[in-house]
Amino acid sequence: MPLSASRIEEIHRSFSGQGLMGTFAACLDELDEGRAVISMPLSDRVTQQHGFFHGGTVGALADTACGYAALSMVPPGKAGLTAEYKINLISPADGDRLIAVGQVIKPGRMLMVCQGEVFVEKEGQRKKCAIALMTLFVMEGLSSI
Amino acid sequence: MPLSASRIEEIHRSFSGQGLMGTFAACLDELDEGRAVISMPLSDRVTQQHGFFHGGTVGALADTACGYAALSMVPPGKAGLTAEYKINLISPADGDRLIAVGQVIKPGRMLMVCQGEVFVEKEGQRKKCAIALMTLFVMEGLSSI
Amino acid sequence: MPLSASRIEEIHRSFSGQGLMGTFAACLDELDEGRAVISMPLSDRVTQQHGFFHGGTVGALADTACGYAALSMVPPGKAGLTAEYKINLISPADGDRLIAVGQVIKPGRMLMVCQGEVFVEKEGQRKKCAIALMTLFVMEGLSSI
Amino acid sequence: MPLSASRIEEIHRSFSGQGLMGTFAACLDELDEGRAVISMPLSDRVTQQHGFFHGGTVGALADTACGYAALSMVPPGKAGLTAEYKINLISPADGDRLIAVGQVIKPGRMLMVCQGEVFVEKEGQRKKCAIALMTLFVMEGLSSI
Repeated sequence: MPLSASRIEEIHRSFSGQGLMGTFAACLDELDEGRAVISMPLSDRVTQQHGFFHGGTVGALADTACGYAALSMVPPGKAGLTAEYKINLISPADGDRLIAVGQVIKPGRMLMVCQGEVFVEKEGQRKKCAIALMTLFVMEGLSSI
Repeated sequence: MPLSASRIEEIHRSFSGQGLMGTFAACLDELDEGRAVISMPLSDRVTQQHGFFHGGTVGALADTACGYAALSMVPPGKAGLTAEYKINLISPADGDRLIAVGQVIKPGRMLMVCQGEVFVEKEGQRKKCAIALMTLFVMEGLSSI
Repeated sequence: MPLSASRIEEIHRSFSGQGLMGTFAACLDELDEGRAVISMPLSDRVTQQHGFFHGGTVGALADTACGYAALSMVPPGKAGLTAEYKINLISPADGDRLIAVGQVIKPGRMLMVCQGEVFVEKEGQRKKCAIALMTLFVMEGLSSI
Repeated sequence: MPLSASRIEEIHRSFSGQGLMGTFAACLDELDEGRAVISMPLSDRVTQQHGFFHGGTVGALADTACGYAALSMVPPGKAGLTAEYKINLISPADGDRLIAVGQVIKPGRMLMVCQGEVFVEKEGQRKKCAIALMTLFVMEGLSSI
């Protein structure tokens, strides 16, 4: 089911309200029901000691992509909360751009399970650098996302 | 075994070289063999949409504390690389200061397993907000940490 | 708060109803509010190819200890379901007896987070061989545990 | 690269040597480079209290499928050891047959990362019931797998 225009707007507003995503200069590039793609450029604000994307940056981007993928399937009037995530860093995140793809693999009424993949781009070449699993908890009674 | 002064200096230099920790205004407050404590203040650079510390910030701080705890036990001339981490966010990170404690629970020649705990402080009250498990891989042949 | 006698009996009945625990010849040795200890002997039913406890056996025992630790805090009339678990195998499970200790570290109305530790005993010496984190989901409307 | 006949035989011998897989009446149905499929029937030896496959059984089968997927890529003379795994149980494993598919997503010289999917079959209908991530450590100097 495609998302309504107002729901898309709400989710983009939530994304814009995340200070960390602003710091990352991250964009919510794609948003479909159960899927979100977020990308960000390399900058010296997000690196580890060798100048690559920090593992914590990679984890945060994967978590956020999964979170918005899940949020796209949370019914209006409810909210989603990350319960946990796990990430395997499979290659050094050495590149100029990071792209995280989050996908709901189990939409549930109370719990959603998402899978994340993170890619790093270097001189136009894209390489998978991380894979994640994340559990989101759907809560009642919050007025906003 | 206590760390040598030169090793402590090396590790602090590595920490200072992490752009992400600079962005977080994070400090490496304590460093012992197998244990590291890192703290950071709340700022609008690190939040989610409700103004709390972003889950990705919490994960990144836990990952980094575990990484430096492990690094303190890596022999000179070798390097450590995060293989994976998993974090459970057990309470909203609602507060003005975040403190991550990383501890090596299994020092190995090739793999180190660390446990992380993250606390949030609000008006002087400290509350545990996350718990993490992390696996670090010890690599040969890198000249620097 | 100590568990009532009837609740303890119910939980032991649930444990006895687990075919896998019977196969493991596992015992629910201790049960308190938020804590469970399960142990099992080595047998050729539970090994990997070198005759040690199989990593899957270690994981299953940790999962079960965490599950019953959580169940001890689930209100009557509700049920608990493992959402996910993660386990680090930190030493070979080489011994004649395996002991898993599960502990609730975050009791929630809807989610419980538990930590598990697994020990292996060899000739009376006890060694930690695994550490786990587990998330349990509290469900409405099941008549039994 | 296809596996040699002698390597396939070695791996099947290792599988047969796992007491737990015998208890599960599990079969190594498929084995290719970087991929393994294992299946098992329901029996009262592997259940939880409602008669479904126990979550620990599901985890153990996923771990084993991932382990043999990785082992198929470990060079002769070296051995593989599970460092950790994480599993999300996304549906009750209610059925008469369990199938785990393990796949290497990052073959490394020292670490391999694998993804596992577990399906449950009920009256011929197959449903995904779990998803796993696993890290295997490649060790030197063991004479056998």
